[in-house]
Amino acid sequence: MKIRIGIMGYGNLGRGVECAIRQNPDMELAAVFTRRDPKSLSILTPGVPVCAVEDAIEMQDRIDVMILCGGSATDLPVQTPYYAQYFNVVDSFDTHAKVPEHFETVDQAAKKSGKVAVMSVGWDPGMFSLSRAYGEAVLPQGSVYTFWGKGVSQGHSDAIRRIDGVQDARQYTIPVEAALEAVRGGSDPVLSTRQKHTRECFVVAKPGADLAKIENEIKTMPNYFDEYDTTVHFITEEELKREHGALPHGGFVIRSGKTGWNEEHHHVIEYSLKLDSNPEFTSSILVAYARAAYRLQQEGGKGCKTVLDIAPAYLSAKSGEELRKSLL
Amino acid sequence: MKIRIGIMGYGNLGRGVECAIRQNPDMELAAVFTRRDPKSLSILTPGVPVCAVEDAIEMQDRIDVMILCGGSATDLPVQTPYYAQYFNVVDSFDTHAKVPEHFETVDQAAKKSGKVAVMSVGWDPGMFSLSRAYGEAVLPQGSVYTFWGKGVSQGHSDAIRRIDGVQDARQYTIPVEAALEAVRGGSDPVLSTRQKHTRECFVVAKPGADLAKIENEIKTMPNYFDEYDTTVHFITEEELKREHGALPHGGFVIRSGKTGWNEEHHHVIEYSLKLDSNPEFTSSILVAYARAAYRLQQEGGKGCKTVLDIAPAYLSAKSGEELRKSLL
Repeated sequence: MKIRIGIMGYGNLGRGVECAIRQNPDMELAAVFTRRDPKSLSILTPGVPVCAVEDAIEMQDRIDVMILCGGSATDLPVQTPYYAQYFNVVDSFDTHAKVPEHFETVDQAAKKSGKVAVMSVGWDPGMFSLSRAYGEAVLPQGSVYTFWGKGVSQGHSDAIRRIDGVQDARQYTIPVEAALEAVRGGSDPVLSTRQKHTRECFVVAKPGADLAKIENEIKTMPNYFDEYDTTVHFITEEELKREHGALPHGGFVIRSGKTGWNEEHHHVIEYSLKLDSNPEFTSSILVAYARAAYRLQQEGGKGCKTVLDIAPAYLSAKSGEELRKSLL
Repeated sequence: MKIRIGIMGYGNLGRGVECAIRQNPDMELAAVFTRRDPKSLSILTPGVPVCAVEDAIEMQDRIDVMILCGGSATDLPVQTPYYAQYFNVVDSFDTHAKVPEHFETVDQAAKKSGKVAVMSVGWDPGMFSLSRAYGEAVLPQGSVYTFWGKGVSQGHSDAIRRIDGVQDARQYTIPVEAALEAVRGGSDPVLSTRQKHTRECFVVAKPGADLAKIENEIKTMPNYFDEYDTTVHFITEEELKREHGALPHGGFVIRSGKTGWNEEHHHVIEYSLKLDSNPEFTSSILVAYARAAYRLQQEGGKGCKTVLDIAPAYLSAKSGEELRKSLL
């Protein structure tokens, strides 16, 4: 029997989950839930029902894991503890500062219902968290560095779009090559925000807008841009669509550490991602952890877990025997 | 109370474990066991007993985890199942073809004794296995490539030393840069053995030896060299000691995969290591998994496990709460 997956929310992430399920023969899409009018929504998989969010609870018997594809700002803080009362769930909660709080509310709900909830699944938090954890454990004497990019930051693109006179925008976060090299070299550099990343913005201005004013507003925007070296390019709508329509991303986690009686030996562990589609890669990870959530609950597990609490074998469709034979 | 570690075998790996314990404040070295005359052995940690291998069993109450630092060819197939009868154990068994067999014998012994045995810990098998497993799980549609080096292969160095007329030798395995680039580019190339790695040998010949004959014997040696492009340099003993005395190693695991309804998006996950000391890095991983073995057994776990069966949180001295806060 296949693991039956529900998708809650059908944006970039929901569509990505739908595609990922197709690549995993032990899983099937059971239903997609939307806040929009279900009749207005056309999905990719033939024969799968599109339902209203309100109908989810009564479909408990037909769904093994609900993958929550909403946003971290307002959706997931409410949705994850709510749906954990009824389903095994997986979310991609990524507000780092609110992780402990989210864990507590989700854990309470899932322990009460006897379900498994996996939170903060994706690549950061997620695969990058794993790299940081393994790196710190095997090289306790050392430093870890995370770099993001080159890739599109949706939050920064949105921030530019809110500026008066801006019609559309795309922002790329770019790691500074010299900083990467310094870290790899093992000098354990202390790097300021400005030294680690630069920001490059492609902006479509509204007709007649004051370009110098827009550029200044971007470059001085607190938190988002003021601590970075930022470049602004004004381009046409056509160029934005043609050249900047995709959502690539990626990044690096580098653990640099020392071993030996006098710490005389240096080691570098580097984990990097180069992604054509940020949401589709995140979705693929969500689906692998949905398999883990299902299996853990089958074994009697319950409560909230993160990627750090789940053994890698649970993510794979292969048996322990096959894994040992093929991957060890 | 600290986790009390025993070291079985005091070669490069055993010494590395001793150094690694010093970097982990929640652990302490309880004893070192040797087949040599214990009185002849001087270890780095003051006040720790050096004992004969035969005395290990009677020290069960003073050791929480025994780290087995013997070789995979003859030591570990006997030692791991034997000591798993009395201790939680960790080994670095790395004969890929015999992994299933070793797992079975160790699992039986550890299940019977109620101990936890973690096998095949290190970087390959070990950290590289983790990378392969995570990569395959999150990008099921794709290929994985493992490259080793640049680094010293002890097995290949030993093979050269066995040739008539050779006094000493050091062999470096070197990944082919063009092959790495092809894999990263996502073309899923089919790579022959020769296309993935080259081999570079530094050889000290005995006085009067036939250098051309030695070079030919190396380059045509079945399994070890015949399928590779091999370079041989004859150098003096002084140069070998001065330039090639260290044991650096490293490598790359690259997962290349596709997502999207029509597999239109490409992704590359790359995990790489650059190590000054192969044995010390391996030892550091052994020590992290010793912590996991101890904790798993404290929770009632038993039997043989590999890195694929152990959640990353078990490797860390931090609590779940701390990990979520600092690493997620």
